[in-house]
Amino acid sequence: MNLKPLGDRVVVKMVEAKEEIRSGLVIPDAAKEKPQEGEIVAIGDLAKDLKVGDIVLFEKYSGSKVKIEGKEYLIMHQDDVLGVVC
Amino acid sequence: MNLKPLGDRVVVKMVEAKEEIRSGLVIPDAAKEKPQEGEIVAIGDLAKDLKVGDIVLFEKYSGSKVKIEGKEYLIMHQDDVLGVVC
Amino acid sequence: MNLKPLGDRVVVKMVEAKEEIRSGLVIPDAAKEKPQEGEIVAIGDLAKDLKVGDIVLFEKYSGSKVKIEGKEYLIMHQDDVLGVVC
Amino acid sequence: MNLKPLGDRVVVKMVEAKEEIRSGLVIPDAAKEKPQEGEIVAIGDLAKDLKVGDIVLFEKYSGSKVKIEGKEYLIMHQDDVLGVVC
Amino acid sequence: MNLKPLGDRVVVKMVEAKEEIRSGLVIPDAAKEKPQEGEIVAIGDLAKDLKVGDIVLFEKYSGSKVKIEGKEYLIMHQDDVLGVVC
Amino acid sequence: MNLKPLGDRVVVKMVEAKEEIRSGLVIPDAAKEKPQEGEIVAIGDLAKDLKVGDIVLFEKYSGSKVKIEGKEYLIMHQDDVLGVVC
Amino acid sequence: MNLKPLGDRVVVKMVEAKEEIRSGLVIPDAAKEKPQEGEIVAIGDLAKDLKVGDIVLFEKYSGSKVKIEGKEYLIMHQDDVLGVVC
Repeated sequence: MNLKPLGDRVVVKMVEAKEEIRSGLVIPDAAKEKPQEGEIVAIGDLAKDLKVGDIVLFEKYSGSKVKIEGKEYLIMHQDDVLGVVC
Repeated sequence: MNLKPLGDRVVVKMVEAKEEIRSGLVIPDAAKEKPQEGEIVAIGDLAKDLKVGDIVLFEKYSGSKVKIEGKEYLIMHQDDVLGVVC
Repeated sequence: MNLKPLGDRVVVKMVEAKEEIRSGLVIPDAAKEKPQEGEIVAIGDLAKDLKVGDIVLFEKYSGSKVKIEGKEYLIMHQDDVLGVVC
Repeated sequence: MNLKPLGDRVVVKMVEAKEEIRSGLVIPDAAKEKPQEGEIVAIGDLAKDLKVGDIVLFEKYSGSKVKIEGKEYLIMHQDDVLGVVC
Repeated sequence: MNLKPLGDRVVVKMVEAKEEIRSGLVIPDAAKEKPQEGEIVAIGDLAKDLKVGDIVLFEKYSGSKVKIEGKEYLIMHQDDVLGVVC
Repeated sequence: MNLKPLGDRVVVKMVEAKEEIRSGLVIPDAAKEKPQEGEIVAIGDLAKDLKVGDIVLFEKYSGSKVKIEGKEYLIMHQDDVLGVVC
Repeated sequence: MNLKPLGDRVVVKMVEAKEEIRSGLVIPDAAKEKPQEGEIVAIGDLAKDLKVGDIVLFEKYSGSKVKIEGKEYLIMHQDDVLGVVC
């Protein structure tokens, strides 16, 4: 990971949620707003509660999407992370 | 519980409120917004006023729903908890 | 009272305001928003300005309604209490 | 006065502004929002800039109306008081 | 001046801006919102940057209008004063 | 300059941006909101990062317009100044 | 760079994102709001986490556009910078 987040930010590699096939069905809004899982791949100097490699839950739509070497990541504030899977 | 909430957050296992049968009646909005009961199943390092096993009241719609091993939980800030049943 | 409010919250047992009969009259909105009287039945550890037994005035619609053993109570922050009847 | 206001609140006995007769005229909104005069009848422990007996100006619609022994009072934060008539 | 403003408030005697005749013209909104000039006639104990007699500029519509002995004044927070004419 | 700004405010003499002729073209909104250049002509006691004579960039529509001896100036908070041309 | 940003601001030289040809396609809004890359060319005295020459990611539409000697730059607060490419 060649990006150092600033301050209390972290970089998260998103884990795509497996979605059941919903052909012919409208996906409800609520379903799109459930928390998502990801992996911490870089941390800012003030993000002291997390470390690289942590698997975390975060609110969908948290943070900013960035594309680094063709892959999508999220940069978000540490406080947007809900918890660490342990 | 394999999720460690971050900061002052707690994980709450919801207790479904028993609803009387209201067939033929419109359920008023107010009824849907009454506080709910739950059990604390994990706490963040800064959630010092609560402990695992506490039965708590919280505002309905507080926190974020997460699904862990097929069960639904809520992650919320300690301050969204109204009180502890004792 | 088997509920310990968290932080600076208090539990208030509402005192129903005696309402004159207003048959045939529209009750004005203003009338519904006058402060109400209640009795403090439980206090959080940070609610240092109040004690159990205090008769208090509070803004109507302050706090959250909870039902404990079939009776309705309000949980509110100490700062939502306007004053103590003495 | 049998009401002790909480924190930095004060209880104000309103002085009704004498209104000229305006028969047949619409009272403009602006006229209703001019500051009003009142007398401090009780103070909270943190309302250190005022004392019982002070005649004060305050914004109309400041604070909450309460009825104590049949008379109307206002409970407001000390900071809602504009000044003291001296 | 028989009014002592509270805290960091000051009492300002407004100086009416001379308006050119604009007969037949719509007065633009911007024109009505230009700062105005006034004279400080009383200060609160925390309004340490101003003194009685200062001629000041302030945003039109700052503060609250009060009528004292038949004359109109403005009570505003010291921070609503833009500067002192010197 | 006979105006002493209060607190962290500064007085700025605006420099009119030279506009190319745009006859026949609608001036886009964005164009109207570009930062502008000005000269600091007076500073408040708390505006320690600037001095009289500094040429500064600031957001258009920052601050309040004042007319002093027939000329237009802007009074703004020091923090509304983006930078100093050096 | 002849502009010294004030406080915790930095001046960023934008790097234009290479856009694939999208002839005949509506560019979705989301695409326009992805973070952008730039180079820090000047820093304020309080922008201690960045230095001149840093390649940074920032939210599109962060900061204010300024034109200096014919070139466009952005002035933004250090906290609007998401991270440093390293």
